[in-house]
Amino acid sequence: MFELHAQLAADTSQIAESDLNLLLLMNDQNYPWCMLVPKRANIKEVFQLSRNDQHQLMDESSLLAQTLMDSFQAHKINVAALGNVVPQLHIHHVARFQDDAAWPKPIWGQVAAIPYDNERRDSVINTLKLSALDKYFSF
Amino acid sequence: MFELHAQLAADTSQIAESDLNLLLLMNDQNYPWCMLVPKRANIKEVFQLSRNDQHQLMDESSLLAQTLMDSFQAHKINVAALGNVVPQLHIHHVARFQDDAAWPKPIWGQVAAIPYDNERRDSVINTLKLSALDKYFSF
Repeated sequence: MFELHAQLAADTSQIAESDLNLLLLMNDQNYPWCMLVPKRANIKEVFQLSRNDQHQLMDESSLLAQTLMDSFQAHKINVAALGNVVPQLHIHHVARFQDDAAWPKPIWGQVAAIPYDNERRDSVINTLKLSALDKYFSF
Repeated sequence: MFELHAQLAADTSQIAESDLNLLLLMNDQNYPWCMLVPKRANIKEVFQLSRNDQHQLMDESSLLAQTLMDSFQAHKINVAALGNVVPQLHIHHVARFQDDAAWPKPIWGQVAAIPYDNERRDSVINTLKLSALDKYFSF
């Protein structure tokens, strides 16, 4: 049975859900940074998902990436499935800006996270709620 | 018209090709590290590809990741589309090991590349040639 990994639960807010994925917001206001976590048990790699799930993941990942780009007027979207520390499959989607804290480097290991206050978190979540994400996701 | 970005050409060897992608081997023997580059002009983000191309990219990416895992007995595969410096869409696929130079951190910005000598490069390429990659790729 699928259960969200404790580390992912501790580092994020769950903001929405599709048939396939949880949509999580990373608690770091350095960047609009979301994760997709397929609700499938014991999956560490994308290729372990069924082909149908892989294609659905691609559809949802692309919608999320385009939404982050459009909603936050980002310069670039970074998408990554790493998982060297937390094995449960989770796919990072990070909106990047030429003046962000780590630009142009990848974000991992660059600067300490800055946790959201409630007001800023609500603002980001509301922006995503009002986007095209409702094609797949329920908030 | 599609043309491989000069920086990607300088950093890699082109080892195979599918209908959609170039398959490149990064010139760094720290890790078996491949890239897929869709042969489509002016594409910076996965979501800019057609939906058919996105699904084909997923199929080829999963085959490549599983092949790297199986052929090199890797512990984890890292898959990432970053592109903050080189804008042409390229998707990293890196076989990771618990004793590799950057484990468990993401590889970017960790240790300097160690260029291949011809013998070691040929060995990696031959391993990939003898794999299931020929489902999509011509070497």
